[in-house]
Amino acid sequence: MKKMILASTSTIYGSDYLEYLIPILKLHFKEVKTITFIPFARPGGISYDAYTKMAKKAFAKINKEVIGIHEVKNIKEGLLNAEAIFIGGGNTFELLNQLHQKQILIDLKEAIERGIPYLGTSAGSVICGLNIKNTNDMPIVYPPSFKGLRCISFNINAHYLDPVQGSQHMGETRETRLKEFHIYNDTPVLGLREGSWISIEGDKVSLQGKHTARLFKKACEAVELESGVLLDL
Amino acid sequence: MKKMILASTSTIYGSDYLEYLIPILKLHFKEVKTITFIPFARPGGISYDAYTKMAKKAFAKINKEVIGIHEVKNIKEGLLNAEAIFIGGGNTFELLNQLHQKQILIDLKEAIERGIPYLGTSAGSVICGLNIKNTNDMPIVYPPSFKGLRCISFNINAHYLDPVQGSQHMGETRETRLKEFHIYNDTPVLGLREGSWISIEGDKVSLQGKHTARLFKKACEAVELESGVLLDL
Repeated sequence: MKKMILASTSTIYGSDYLEYLIPILKLHFKEVKTITFIPFARPGGISYDAYTKMAKKAFAKINKEVIGIHEVKNIKEGLLNAEAIFIGGGNTFELLNQLHQKQILIDLKEAIERGIPYLGTSAGSVICGLNIKNTNDMPIVYPPSFKGLRCISFNINAHYLDPVQGSQHMGETRETRLKEFHIYNDTPVLGLREGSWISIEGDKVSLQGKHTARLFKKACEAVELESGVLLDL
Repeated sequence: MKKMILASTSTIYGSDYLEYLIPILKLHFKEVKTITFIPFARPGGISYDAYTKMAKKAFAKINKEVIGIHEVKNIKEGLLNAEAIFIGGGNTFELLNQLHQKQILIDLKEAIERGIPYLGTSAGSVICGLNIKNTNDMPIVYPPSFKGLRCISFNINAHYLDPVQGSQHMGETRETRLKEFHIYNDTPVLGLREGSWISIEGDKVSLQGKHTARLFKKACEAVELESGVLLDL
């Protein structure tokens, strides 16, 4: 039975890394002692060690040990033996590219579908969708494919932003981009605001956190979903 | 001798499509009667016809006829016979993907290098760089490669935006993204603000328009370049 938390962001403004999620993570990881961390998305290009240190510090607050997957000799074995997995945010293209290079996409998908507790934040959430075509990241590396882990039946647009009223910038709004996506694609996309997350318990997929989320479907008006609602996409 | 204008944007706030560039375009296209327009980037997913209509309307002001490349029976011949070329903005991934599908990347590069007057705006400028890895667009389609036309020796980041002071959004600033790019890549990137453009006359590449531009090079501090400066990258 799948057991996943897919958060829009690791950090909300004015608080520490993962702080707002800690009460939820305490429950989510109740049965495990160690969490295997995948730091491949490297936010701002920081090192795997530096990134893993951030995760270690956050999870120490709830007495969980964090193991950086890059510290493990055999990555595939590391995943097979993981009690729980956390993929942090950063650049989605680089994350996907590394998962391809290390040939662990299938192992990862199998582990999640076997039901080990999974946490994704930002890129770590986006990667669980059908594909990464709704990332906001800059395509700084060319991955062999845009296909995601397909652990959920829709895509996530993380850090969803409402249009800035009165902006004089001519770049597209997030809503315009997501509508444009549906000219070429059918996949539903959930615009997940910072502070919201998706909870997955087996077949039960629900929206959690303090905000509504904006659902975009091909040839439909976008709709706002209330926190707590079940997602049947 | 190459003769190109690569603009950050087609439109600046509060004015019509291409309006701010019209005096420059009058000179740039002085010797030609017709301009072949490539509408493949489809901003917001609009049709090729609707997009071409916008270009026709703008260029009618300086008595130039615009031909949509999609209206031409043989696209390769259309390019070969073009007096001038304009590639408009929209989605860079879709633009590049279509240039691949229609197998006209080489024809386009040859035409530009032969010296027919070229105008690019936004995605139409980005595509002229070494690769499209500095686009701000959403990767809504997967092109066979990220390689650009390589008509200039650097990349352009169009619609360059300075960090928003006091923002509570946790998504990366443009500067953070461009610095992250240089963790994985060596190509210099010019952050071109809306209202600025690059003028290329043979080997003379210069910054034009009303703003400074921000130059990012690997392992260097970003620097502001004054309008009018020659670029030697």
